[in-house]
Amino acid sequence: MKTESRLVQWICWLIVITSFFLTGFIIGWFARPTSTETSHDAGSRRHLREFLDEMRPENIRDHLRKFTRLPHLAGTEQNLQLAEQIKGEWLAYGLDSVEMVPYDVLLSYPNISQPNYISIVDDLGNEMFNTSLSEPVPEGYENVSDIVPPYSAFSAQGQPGDLVYVNYGRTEDFFQLERQMGINVTGKIVIVRYGNIFRGNKVKNAMLHGASGIIMFSDPADYCAPGVQPYPDGWNLPGGGAQRGNVLNLNGAGDPLTPGYPAKEYTYRYNLEEGVGLPKIPVHPIGYHDAIQLLKNMGGDVPPNNWKGALNVSYRIGPGFTDGFSTQKVRMNIHTNNQVTRIYNVIGRLRGAVEPDRYVILGGHRDAWVFGGIDPVTGAAVVHESVRSAGKLLRKGWRPRRSIVFASWDAEEFGLLGSTEWAEENAKVLQERAVAYINADSAIEGMYTLRIDCTPSLHTLVYDITKQVSSPEEGEEGLSLYESWHKRDNWTDDRDAPRISKLGSGSDFEAYFIRLGIAAGRARYTKNRKTERYSSYPVYHSVYETFELVERFYDPSFRKLRAVAQVRGGLIFLLADSQLLPLDASQYAGSLTKYAHTIAQLGQKHPDALVKYGVSFDSLFSAVENFTVAARDFHERLTTLDRTDPIQIRMVNDQLMYLERAFVDPLGLPGRPFYRHVIFAPSSHNKYAGESFPGIYDALFDIERTANPKQAWDEVRRQISIAAFTVQAAAMTLTPPSETKSQISDVL
Amino acid sequence: MKTESRLVQWICWLIVITSFFLTGFIIGWFARPTSTETSHDAGSRRHLREFLDEMRPENIRDHLRKFTRLPHLAGTEQNLQLAEQIKGEWLAYGLDSVEMVPYDVLLSYPNISQPNYISIVDDLGNEMFNTSLSEPVPEGYENVSDIVPPYSAFSAQGQPGDLVYVNYGRTEDFFQLERQMGINVTGKIVIVRYGNIFRGNKVKNAMLHGASGIIMFSDPADYCAPGVQPYPDGWNLPGGGAQRGNVLNLNGAGDPLTPGYPAKEYTYRYNLEEGVGLPKIPVHPIGYHDAIQLLKNMGGDVPPNNWKGALNVSYRIGPGFTDGFSTQKVRMNIHTNNQVTRIYNVIGRLRGAVEPDRYVILGGHRDAWVFGGIDPVTGAAVVHESVRSAGKLLRKGWRPRRSIVFASWDAEEFGLLGSTEWAEENAKVLQERAVAYINADSAIEGMYTLRIDCTPSLHTLVYDITKQVSSPEEGEEGLSLYESWHKRDNWTDDRDAPRISKLGSGSDFEAYFIRLGIAAGRARYTKNRKTERYSSYPVYHSVYETFELVERFYDPSFRKLRAVAQVRGGLIFLLADSQLLPLDASQYAGSLTKYAHTIAQLGQKHPDALVKYGVSFDSLFSAVENFTVAARDFHERLTTLDRTDPIQIRMVNDQLMYLERAFVDPLGLPGRPFYRHVIFAPSSHNKYAGESFPGIYDALFDIERTANPKQAWDEVRRQISIAAFTVQAAAMTLTPPSETKSQISDVL
Repeated sequence: MKTESRLVQWICWLIVITSFFLTGFIIGWFARPTSTETSHDAGSRRHLREFLDEMRPENIRDHLRKFTRLPHLAGTEQNLQLAEQIKGEWLAYGLDSVEMVPYDVLLSYPNISQPNYISIVDDLGNEMFNTSLSEPVPEGYENVSDIVPPYSAFSAQGQPGDLVYVNYGRTEDFFQLERQMGINVTGKIVIVRYGNIFRGNKVKNAMLHGASGIIMFSDPADYCAPGVQPYPDGWNLPGGGAQRGNVLNLNGAGDPLTPGYPAKEYTYRYNLEEGVGLPKIPVHPIGYHDAIQLLKNMGGDVPPNNWKGALNVSYRIGPGFTDGFSTQKVRMNIHTNNQVTRIYNVIGRLRGAVEPDRYVILGGHRDAWVFGGIDPVTGAAVVHESVRSAGKLLRKGWRPRRSIVFASWDAEEFGLLGSTEWAEENAKVLQERAVAYINADSAIEGMYTLRIDCTPSLHTLVYDITKQVSSPEEGEEGLSLYESWHKRDNWTDDRDAPRISKLGSGSDFEAYFIRLGIAAGRARYTKNRKTERYSSYPVYHSVYETFELVERFYDPSFRKLRAVAQVRGGLIFLLADSQLLPLDASQYAGSLTKYAHTIAQLGQKHPDALVKYGVSFDSLFSAVENFTVAARDFHERLTTLDRTDPIQIRMVNDQLMYLERAFVDPLGLPGRPFYRHVIFAPSSHNKYAGESFPGIYDALFDIERTANPKQAWDEVRRQISIAAFTVQAAAMTLTPPSETKSQISDVL
Repeated sequence: MKTESRLVQWICWLIVITSFFLTGFIIGWFARPTSTETSHDAGSRRHLREFLDEMRPENIRDHLRKFTRLPHLAGTEQNLQLAEQIKGEWLAYGLDSVEMVPYDVLLSYPNISQPNYISIVDDLGNEMFNTSLSEPVPEGYENVSDIVPPYSAFSAQGQPGDLVYVNYGRTEDFFQLERQMGINVTGKIVIVRYGNIFRGNKVKNAMLHGASGIIMFSDPADYCAPGVQPYPDGWNLPGGGAQRGNVLNLNGAGDPLTPGYPAKEYTYRYNLEEGVGLPKIPVHPIGYHDAIQLLKNMGGDVPPNNWKGALNVSYRIGPGFTDGFSTQKVRMNIHTNNQVTRIYNVIGRLRGAVEPDRYVILGGHRDAWVFGGIDPVTGAAVVHESVRSAGKLLRKGWRPRRSIVFASWDAEEFGLLGSTEWAEENAKVLQERAVAYINADSAIEGMYTLRIDCTPSLHTLVYDITKQVSSPEEGEEGLSLYESWHKRDNWTDDRDAPRISKLGSGSDFEAYFIRLGIAAGRARYTKNRKTERYSSYPVYHSVYETFELVERFYDPSFRKLRAVAQVRGGLIFLLADSQLLPLDASQYAGSLTKYAHTIAQLGQKHPDALVKYGVSFDSLFSAVENFTVAARDFHERLTTLDRTDPIQIRMVNDQLMYLERAFVDPLGLPGRPFYRHVIFAPSSHNKYAGESFPGIYDALFDIERTANPKQAWDEVRRQISIAAFTVQAAAMTLTPPSETKSQISDVL
């Protein structure tokens, strides 16, 4: 009995122990997360706050001061030294790696022993007047050597001729000159105002119309703000200042001699005659003091008022000089040389913890025409501060989900060469793995408010991040940057939110966005677009872009630059660290709808022709409608996604990442094989202006000037068809990959 | 004391119980797999066995019988009905979905009321001889209507002229004719033998040399095997049979009127004059009975022996007829019409269980010139049996890891139109998600052994699967297909393994492989390439391609077709169901090394020119070496991969999937924008022949015929540079994405 009861007792205990063991086992089994994918977004937000708060105005000031002491033109020893310095500091800040990546690209420099100038010569060939050989150097920089004088990079070499004034040198200006004023510029030297469109387009137009040379001047109407003093007493362009700049028509080709491929040592190079976009005529920039001398004695008719600038001359059209001076000619003495030269990008990397094969890129250029006080060092200083702040977080053990790439590009000023060559070399890897590209050129061009140009899928993220950044404006303590911006630039006609613009070109995002289809955006502080009508900022690309220009006038507290740093950095941070990519397909749908209406309205200016040539925008509207439905359904499905399933997360993130890629057509836009984005590209008539549906836009632009309307309207029809197809194909990428039937309708 | 000891006892028990609980908890915690990614490859292999064993010769026989009773030319009612039937049966077999996908493409049909023929006319215009209007119909098919007579699809309409015989009509034949024999074909009708190169290339060559028409005949030397009777007593081509076929030069464009975009209703169509690849001269095919009549009285010189076929004529070159017949002319009466016509692909889908956004495609065409006894129905029957077998497994609860797409393409015979239009419509989704494409055209063209053409990364998988399939040969019971194949076609000069060939073109894999860069392969039973020298199989594209041809001669047991079905199906199965993609980058490295040596040797035929024009293959060898190292390291890393981490697995699988994509250049090969694969494409001189480094190959091909050697060698240099860059870029995709520095050297 006793042993029996003992046995029973033992059995009981065994049962109890076993059941506790089992309970423990079961709890243990279920307590363990089945995946490393836990929602880490709350932690990520805390790190974001730290990352933003770590950025300091005084640091940005110091970076700017440090990087603007000497000129650092692309291809020079100074710019290589600056690259080495940046590499060293990025490594010290804590990036996982920093590399120098060289390319050998075509650059263009004035000939030191034969300076460039323009002269007025009499009939014996005596020089009556010469334009200045350089700009007066600003105070404090008198001992600096290697300041490159104003020139037009890649200009051909020069010859004499008569002047013809063609306003801004736009397509419509030349059309007006030839058709309405009856003046042919063949063999003449064209003189045009800077501004309104990219200077390379002016040069292309001059060549197309047969001009033998082109002079570009900065008119005070376009380069002086009213009531502002010339530098150094204010931020206006002095009369002796002039705008440097390249005059290529690359259309995204990068190095003119190696289009489509990276300019490495082994790469095949075209001859100079075959190079992409090189002008065949001499080109030279002058300031307004020199321009007066060339313009004042011009003959011919007085032009319409909208051709007149603010100089005290009558802006006569020519050709040539007026009576009494009519035997005088203008001679362009241009000795600029093209030269294959080594450049260096600096590429820093920060490895992602979970998805190291996904890249978020923050890139901006380092090369400057002279000191780069605004362009590009306000941008480079901001990148520098972002790297420093990220390094600080890294030391605390943080690491983003995805990899981040920081880039300091070279030779942007010579045609976006460094960034484009790197994009060419890494095209395959970028197409497969790049999540987004944020550009970091000049961070300020005015003192009024924020300016954002970005792809529509980034709109929501831009609003999100600007709500987490403080207004840099005095008297707006407690206001967010979003509120400050909203107050100053409301998107009234569309929606009650701060205005966001389309991306054009003219900076290093071009190859990433327009060629490769990587979601892209840029942020900077800007002027008031309603009241301040001058082009760019007045001293743009002159020797007067100094540290002092920024410190005295543009951002004495450096808080505006800090705000821009926080926006650029914050975008990168959230793109790299959010579990679900913060890209919004529905915003893209909204934008496409708006663009479709805009382009259809442009077509509807010719109602009779639309009927006659059977042109309809219906297929485009139908495709946009399908895209809208697909985007809405996509985001609805996201709300019920299993956030613990890593493959599910990766699948939808892949759809978001590849959305922008879907808008790229490998065949390119007509005649522009490297501009492949069907929704956004510059118009053929102005590289700076981002147009939506650029293929249709350009086809319609030609309608008014064509000699063959049937052919021109056929091209419009063809472009509408390509746009409709592209939008539909993009919609298809948003339908569930797990579905086995088409989720969206056919295009009607 | 008692209460105290009770307390101690309780505490002891509590400790014991707690420790058991904790032990349970800990064991439970660690016992639970942290991921759903368990190695399921063993289970997958068991399912593979079931999948292969389920395929039966008698079923393949039945499918073939059923699908070859009536003609099913693309664009006809019969072919639509066949599509509906296939759709119904695939759904019944158990696919998740089956869709009909229509396109409106340019097809070409003879005019029923004005039949095509060629005549010899006397000087009064009387027809002295006319070629036959149709082939004698084989027994059993006398009551079948809608048999399209032999014609050259897309031929222009015709005119009279003198004949010139130009052998096979190859680039080198025309070169020999003009340079060595001194005969100009301008305005003449060219007559050439079928065979050796794609017929469209013959037509292009004739046009390039100014011919006014071209006649193609099947010579017994090329279309009759020695000792074999003509059909129906054997499988040789009867004298009244002729080869249909399209004569386009599309170079991968798909529908000639909508190059680059799917031929949907809304799509912009070019005019016929602007269409891609349409011949401007009349073209017509004839059999050898008719050919004798045209050839026998020809005048001019007797050609070299390698221009002579097996007919009892002297193969004189012309131009025109010999004395006594010299006033006679040849007239081509061609009334074939181009016509935009609706075609239908059938697309069946099977959803993947783990990665539904990864697609493995098995596609082959359904349209036939007449009955399609071999081409394509031996292929379509094999696909049908694969679908049936997969459906059977599905019913048992199996589902592959990735999605499988089965495709029945339309209008392959008119220029790969159905498959290309679908590739165009789905290009974005396919570029992002397609793992591999296996082609399923004719499954048999001879009775000797297996033939595989595929991308190098599939070599290892092909060997693997053929070891799991039994030899279909009598007397080889117990031998694997691999052993049987190895015995018959050893790759002796390279390695001791069965020979695998490069992909050329001429079937539906083209757009997937050469345009989109999706890993691709094809499998069929073939003749003995060493002893059987005739082109294709003798009755190719004639009315004699019947069910009986296969049942009586090619594969009476249907075991050869079953073996091909098991190879094609097995490839699809393992690509869709293996946890790690069975793609082998090292095999690609080995092939690239071989190709680099081959192309360099071709260049070294001109040692003086290489020196004179500075041509070097070093950069290519350097890039191939880098690729080899990257591939080796990649596969080494796979051996230590954490197989339980889904993101790790996905990352390396993405690298494997995108490897083939890395060889695609969006700029295309020179003059061929839709042939984008830098490693594999047909030569410009023969669509059927797959060349490695086709850009370099074509540039070298031109060397011997060029008038400007400097320019020609510059093009060779340019192509070497592009090839080196592309191989290097592909190597970069194989380096660890988690590494932050370049893992491979620069190209030297």
